[in-house]
Amino acid sequence: MVSICQFGAGRIGAIHAANIADSGAKLAYVVDVNRDAAQALAGRHGARVADADAALADASVDAVVIASSTDTHADLIERAAKAGKKIFCEKPVDLSMDRVDRCIATVKAAGVPVLMGFNRRFDPNFAALKQAIDAGRIGAVEMVQIVSRDPGPPPLAYVKVSGGLFRDMMIHDFDMARFLLGEEPVEVQASASCLVDPQIGAAGDVDSAAVTLRTASGRLCQISNSRRAVYGYDQRVEVLGPKGMLAAGNRTPTTVVASTVDGVVADKPLHFFLERYAEAYRIELRHFLDVCAGKATPLVGIDDGRRALRLAEAANESLASRRAVAV
Amino acid sequence: MVSICQFGAGRIGAIHAANIADSGAKLAYVVDVNRDAAQALAGRHGARVADADAALADASVDAVVIASSTDTHADLIERAAKAGKKIFCEKPVDLSMDRVDRCIATVKAAGVPVLMGFNRRFDPNFAALKQAIDAGRIGAVEMVQIVSRDPGPPPLAYVKVSGGLFRDMMIHDFDMARFLLGEEPVEVQASASCLVDPQIGAAGDVDSAAVTLRTASGRLCQISNSRRAVYGYDQRVEVLGPKGMLAAGNRTPTTVVASTVDGVVADKPLHFFLERYAEAYRIELRHFLDVCAGKATPLVGIDDGRRALRLAEAANESLASRRAVAV
Amino acid sequence: MVSICQFGAGRIGAIHAANIADSGAKLAYVVDVNRDAAQALAGRHGARVADADAALADASVDAVVIASSTDTHADLIERAAKAGKKIFCEKPVDLSMDRVDRCIATVKAAGVPVLMGFNRRFDPNFAALKQAIDAGRIGAVEMVQIVSRDPGPPPLAYVKVSGGLFRDMMIHDFDMARFLLGEEPVEVQASASCLVDPQIGAAGDVDSAAVTLRTASGRLCQISNSRRAVYGYDQRVEVLGPKGMLAAGNRTPTTVVASTVDGVVADKPLHFFLERYAEAYRIELRHFLDVCAGKATPLVGIDDGRRALRLAEAANESLASRRAVAV
Amino acid sequence: MVSICQFGAGRIGAIHAANIADSGAKLAYVVDVNRDAAQALAGRHGARVADADAALADASVDAVVIASSTDTHADLIERAAKAGKKIFCEKPVDLSMDRVDRCIATVKAAGVPVLMGFNRRFDPNFAALKQAIDAGRIGAVEMVQIVSRDPGPPPLAYVKVSGGLFRDMMIHDFDMARFLLGEEPVEVQASASCLVDPQIGAAGDVDSAAVTLRTASGRLCQISNSRRAVYGYDQRVEVLGPKGMLAAGNRTPTTVVASTVDGVVADKPLHFFLERYAEAYRIELRHFLDVCAGKATPLVGIDDGRRALRLAEAANESLASRRAVAV
Repeated sequence: MVSICQFGAGRIGAIHAANIADSGAKLAYVVDVNRDAAQALAGRHGARVADADAALADASVDAVVIASSTDTHADLIERAAKAGKKIFCEKPVDLSMDRVDRCIATVKAAGVPVLMGFNRRFDPNFAALKQAIDAGRIGAVEMVQIVSRDPGPPPLAYVKVSGGLFRDMMIHDFDMARFLLGEEPVEVQASASCLVDPQIGAAGDVDSAAVTLRTASGRLCQISNSRRAVYGYDQRVEVLGPKGMLAAGNRTPTTVVASTVDGVVADKPLHFFLERYAEAYRIELRHFLDVCAGKATPLVGIDDGRRALRLAEAANESLASRRAVAV
Repeated sequence: MVSICQFGAGRIGAIHAANIADSGAKLAYVVDVNRDAAQALAGRHGARVADADAALADASVDAVVIASSTDTHADLIERAAKAGKKIFCEKPVDLSMDRVDRCIATVKAAGVPVLMGFNRRFDPNFAALKQAIDAGRIGAVEMVQIVSRDPGPPPLAYVKVSGGLFRDMMIHDFDMARFLLGEEPVEVQASASCLVDPQIGAAGDVDSAAVTLRTASGRLCQISNSRRAVYGYDQRVEVLGPKGMLAAGNRTPTTVVASTVDGVVADKPLHFFLERYAEAYRIELRHFLDVCAGKATPLVGIDDGRRALRLAEAANESLASRRAVAV
Repeated sequence: MVSICQFGAGRIGAIHAANIADSGAKLAYVVDVNRDAAQALAGRHGARVADADAALADASVDAVVIASSTDTHADLIERAAKAGKKIFCEKPVDLSMDRVDRCIATVKAAGVPVLMGFNRRFDPNFAALKQAIDAGRIGAVEMVQIVSRDPGPPPLAYVKVSGGLFRDMMIHDFDMARFLLGEEPVEVQASASCLVDPQIGAAGDVDSAAVTLRTASGRLCQISNSRRAVYGYDQRVEVLGPKGMLAAGNRTPTTVVASTVDGVVADKPLHFFLERYAEAYRIELRHFLDVCAGKATPLVGIDDGRRALRLAEAANESLASRRAVAV
Repeated sequence: MVSICQFGAGRIGAIHAANIADSGAKLAYVVDVNRDAAQALAGRHGARVADADAALADASVDAVVIASSTDTHADLIERAAKAGKKIFCEKPVDLSMDRVDRCIATVKAAGVPVLMGFNRRFDPNFAALKQAIDAGRIGAVEMVQIVSRDPGPPPLAYVKVSGGLFRDMMIHDFDMARFLLGEEPVEVQASASCLVDPQIGAAGDVDSAAVTLRTASGRLCQISNSRRAVYGYDQRVEVLGPKGMLAAGNRTPTTVVASTVDGVVADKPLHFFLERYAEAYRIELRHFLDVCAGKATPLVGIDDGRRALRLAEAANESLASRRAVAV
């Protein structure tokens, strides 16, 4: 049985801990600067609370799940790598490319697998769409459209440390773009605004963004982000090829449709990532256990984390320079 | 922690056992005439294999889940009731109304709660539709349409002991009709044919059926059953009222849509009841645990099982007599 | 150019007159007991107002379109037939089967073609569905579901002379059932209620009905009628066969969908028959011109009118007797 | 009755001529360098064939419809303006901005109304969406997505004289963007490729394009164009605001859905602009007649034609410079 130490006992940490428990793996430790949160989560799943040193020193621990705050990721990845643990880390590796590069070097030296938490690749809808592409259903990809909108903006305090919309939010879409394009983007054009909350603009960030990616062979991808979609978490992709189009859309709580004098009313999309990607998180965790068991290599690794960050940085550069930025 | 003895280690038994394990309750015993199946399922969830007498004699067992073959239901309900256990039993109570009546008498005398496994009431789609009715969204119910089709016919051996389409398959729809109509049907008209497999007809049964129910105040319900829908398990309801219509439809594995020269192609409905009603079974089991804990009374009880069977019998009578049958 | 005399200058008459004008045929006469209405419609399309005798005596008139009140149909059909005119008549031929039989005899003797106005067969959606059946897309038809609901009940004065729901409203669905079943129904079961307007019940009619048809080979059809669907004219069919299901649904004014905090809201169905079947009426009229030109025989003739009426009568008998009625 | 001279007897000319005939206006002249085509179209609608001078010299002619090749537009607009005719001209005014400016000056001097043929504004779906915006359904517009794809590329000969994808094809979407944004775009970013047909690239054009527009207040619009969507003419828009999202999609020939072992298959979108925008062309022509009658001013005028062209030019500049281009 795989024995796991989890860093982070917050919202996403609770998801992973529950999935570990359900999967048949052992949640050995929970580590969090908030000891109460750590204790509560550990207690729920029969784990122990420890500090990072103690947990990483325990030779019976096979793997770590890093779901703590972004500023701790690179450090924990390195420490876990040096301790020989298999690693599953939420995005991003770090907000600084230099730090990411050093982290990657450490990981490569240690020779441990790292699974980056780009959970959307594991969403059954997007995964099935990707399989259809790979099966040749629409031929070679030409154009990709990604719409990705949160139901509402995060707390301003979070916005301020988030690294900005491109590195915090659109980074998921950059990874999805790479996943679907089947080629590396070589150019980024970004346009963005503050339309949702002036305080986000005052904090130096944007909340609405439109980005275009282009690959060497000319494939095009458009990404639309907004921090606010009052109708729910809006997560859709479309891919055009010479033989047709594949689209994957939102899921709803129920299929109930009410036809009244006011129209034909269906459910809104599932509210947010915890609901929409619940199954993706489960599948992702099972994949990590397969990685731990040597039955799989990470479907999305630390190099993918680096590439998504590079696209985010390029978007920032393009936003500042009003030029297309080569990557 | 609620301690449960489960009867039946087959397909539906495996579902309930897993849901018990996930729910935090204790699966104490698995009972099945097939000892290998019992052992396999018990082993998977840390339960013991026992015979019925031993399991029911164990005072630490609070409740039973009866998922064995139909001909054992009434007997097991009575034995469990006499042993003071709370009862969750798959439909039907029995194929004979006399036997059902005796069983109900025993249960009433014992004073134990019985939850009948009309799982569809717990389906989030149908449950949400029912809530919308109760909330007055469409006003008083006037007409109900139920389409309920299996992906393919069961084995002929099963057909022969099933009690016939009305008591085996449409019984779920009779319960759904009662659930949605909000009134008791007082008249049944049935028409049916053997269109799917002549062997089903040779065995004295039908595989395609159209039934109309009427309540005292004139509410109408049409039910359509077929043993074969090659596009998947087709489970839909519609309810009309003075203020509009509510409909709940099928769920699909994914939201992927492929637009090609051949058309715009979406997923088929989920394949069969194990897929479509997976969540319903989980919710149903949690409801049973609430019943066991005294926090709820059964949302669907043994009297509901009797009433659904009565409608099935009336359908058989109508099919034979070509008359509307009063119930 | 085909020269046409039209009887009836009401709502449906205006539709046919406009379609005649658009089609390149000549609208020669308009006949209506309401001379003002006749004059207005004739004036709009350059036709003359005449009485029936004069119009039918005009040898240059090739054909008649009968869109006057039901009680005039049989008489006008006979007079037109005797005058050698080709005939397009709105349903029904008459409310009395005896009268229909005499009318048919007269028509057969005269040897003129009669197209009955079962406009729904010409609806592009239902016509395409029928073509898919005929092309073998789902194999031999097994079960048909027809939902047919008006947005609101007609004036009570109309209800009183309508012949009742089965002969006035469901007659369209009986024809659709025959169209889709591909076999003649041999048995009718009817259930019905007055749920929409008590005055309809007081007038001896019903406003909500559920009917089941069965063919000799066992094919089943369920029809649902209501005089009130506040969300719009609800006109849907489904057909099940061994290889799948074909469904055709409502059309909407636009494809606009609004996603807000209140849900995902699409347009209601087109309001009523004038909107939903506008294209069907155009196609139907063109087909009649083809019949007039000898390029086609009526896709739906006076015998079809008789058969639909027979099913309506059987439904009335079943409703009264609470028995299945053989036809 | 409005008397009209139409220039151009090709595909789109035939549409307009038929709509003129149906509208009750008089099609007086058809002018086309191809005399046979002119004769055929004129004959169909009772018009005369003439050359431009003669037709424009006829004082009884109130208005012109210009549906001839792009290189004749500006010249014909000017000649018609000088002759005092009301003008309805297909897009674009001209491929050269200088020429457009001179043409506008001539028109303003003449004081005649000009309706530019941006037909999509008259599409009932997009028009209803715009009305919902104006009614405040989603609040102030924030982001617009436009997908606009042809079923297949035009003949290479046409591509060579078309002015390029931005001025020939996306010009419609630039107008739609302005229509929906409710503000003028001030910046254009373009990315584009040749992915559909290498010969298009060899001719110096692109066939796949992704463009982002930004308004002064920060509203964003993304446009996706492809010369090939094998599933049919793909014409969709989405608009996001603080109170929700409005979307308008494709229309289909029928509502027929086939559920088989291969999936749930719906119709493809209507094939191309003649089918999809048939109703838009009718409404547009009726609007022009209202303009001619002094009952309306052009909903989309020659200045709108200029602005759309300016956006197309900016897109070309951005594509060449890899910079965001201010407009």
